[in-house]
Amino acid sequence: MEQITIIGNGHMARSLAVRMIKGRHSVLILGRNEGKTRDLVEFLGAGAHGGREGTSIEGDLVFLAVPFEEGRKAVSAYGSALAGKVVVDISNPVDLATFDRLLVREDTSAAESIALLAGPTTDVVKAFNTCLAKPLEAGSVAGFPLDVFIAGDSEQAKATVSAVAANSGLRPIDVGPLKRARQLESMMLLVMGLQVNPEHKNFNWDTSLKILP
Amino acid sequence: MEQITIIGNGHMARSLAVRMIKGRHSVLILGRNEGKTRDLVEFLGAGAHGGREGTSIEGDLVFLAVPFEEGRKAVSAYGSALAGKVVVDISNPVDLATFDRLLVREDTSAAESIALLAGPTTDVVKAFNTCLAKPLEAGSVAGFPLDVFIAGDSEQAKATVSAVAANSGLRPIDVGPLKRARQLESMMLLVMGLQVNPEHKNFNWDTSLKILP
Repeated sequence: MEQITIIGNGHMARSLAVRMIKGRHSVLILGRNEGKTRDLVEFLGAGAHGGREGTSIEGDLVFLAVPFEEGRKAVSAYGSALAGKVVVDISNPVDLATFDRLLVREDTSAAESIALLAGPTTDVVKAFNTCLAKPLEAGSVAGFPLDVFIAGDSEQAKATVSAVAANSGLRPIDVGPLKRARQLESMMLLVMGLQVNPEHKNFNWDTSLKILP
Repeated sequence: MEQITIIGNGHMARSLAVRMIKGRHSVLILGRNEGKTRDLVEFLGAGAHGGREGTSIEGDLVFLAVPFEEGRKAVSAYGSALAGKVVVDISNPVDLATFDRLLVREDTSAAESIALLAGPTTDVVKAFNTCLAKPLEAGSVAGFPLDVFIAGDSEQAKATVSAVAANSGLRPIDVGPLKRARQLESMMLLVMGLQVNPEHKNFNWDTSLKILP
């Protein structure tokens, strides 16, 4: 069982926390809006507690469940408090005005940018970015466990994230080094674009990207 | 029913032809190796006939079922014979020596490169690149029809390819303009890398990338 800190109190924070509590992990929710954090902790029940973003991280596994730029700010603000920890970037740096481009250069990724910012003493892992909040909270889609694609340069850090995903009822897939985040983020530009396109009546933020079987 | 020309006589040509003949289309296989083309046409049976690459295209829908560079050569060689036709690029320009990079620049795609070469009188569509040969021939994976992601700048050309995919028992998904091929090709760098990685015992060129449900 891990003590996990989730920075953020929105839809993705909620879904990650639900799954991880099912996996019998303990979750600390750190949010900016205290009322929203309190509501989420109450909804999550046993296994969850809350605090204000900026207060101490608990455990060695930290999820950035906030938009990319907010994640960067959190990593900067926590600074050396993240040394020795595994930081999971779940972000999709998609231009939400157009769903036509990424907000990072083509020769890098949000995850690599966060790793650069965090420095060499923190292991940054890309994971869960292909999971949309609603199916992630459910844990499965069409009877299959969700796929969690995991990219990172530390085998040990990826093993930690894989174990948490697996005992939360999901299927972890190690996709290689952190730079594979470019592929994962790129694909979500396309997948998220489908969700907002009214021509795709069946795609309403309730789908999952999977490798079958 | 379309008359379809498939350039190539390998695994992907075979799988595309099997599905399209199931969809009651007629297929012309154009290959370099005459013996291999004859064997494939014999295997396909009614609905298929063959010829040598370089001889006349039949119908208005042409699949480039050859590697990216071969596809470029075919488009150059056919030249104005492709005017007014829909050309489908199914390629994955992946460095097969490393499975670590694409053979096209990050700000373009194989499909866009082929469209540039073909010129404005030919409609190039990216499709079927996320389908591996074995599951494509079967048409379904884990009980679900395969997803065919379709990118292109001509709505009419995409509608033609969508219709062929649908009546071949597959699920077409229009993912937007031709530049979305960058995302489709990028993701396959990752997916193909999983197939060749011995650590992923369950991935053996028999999987499919799908949006569920």
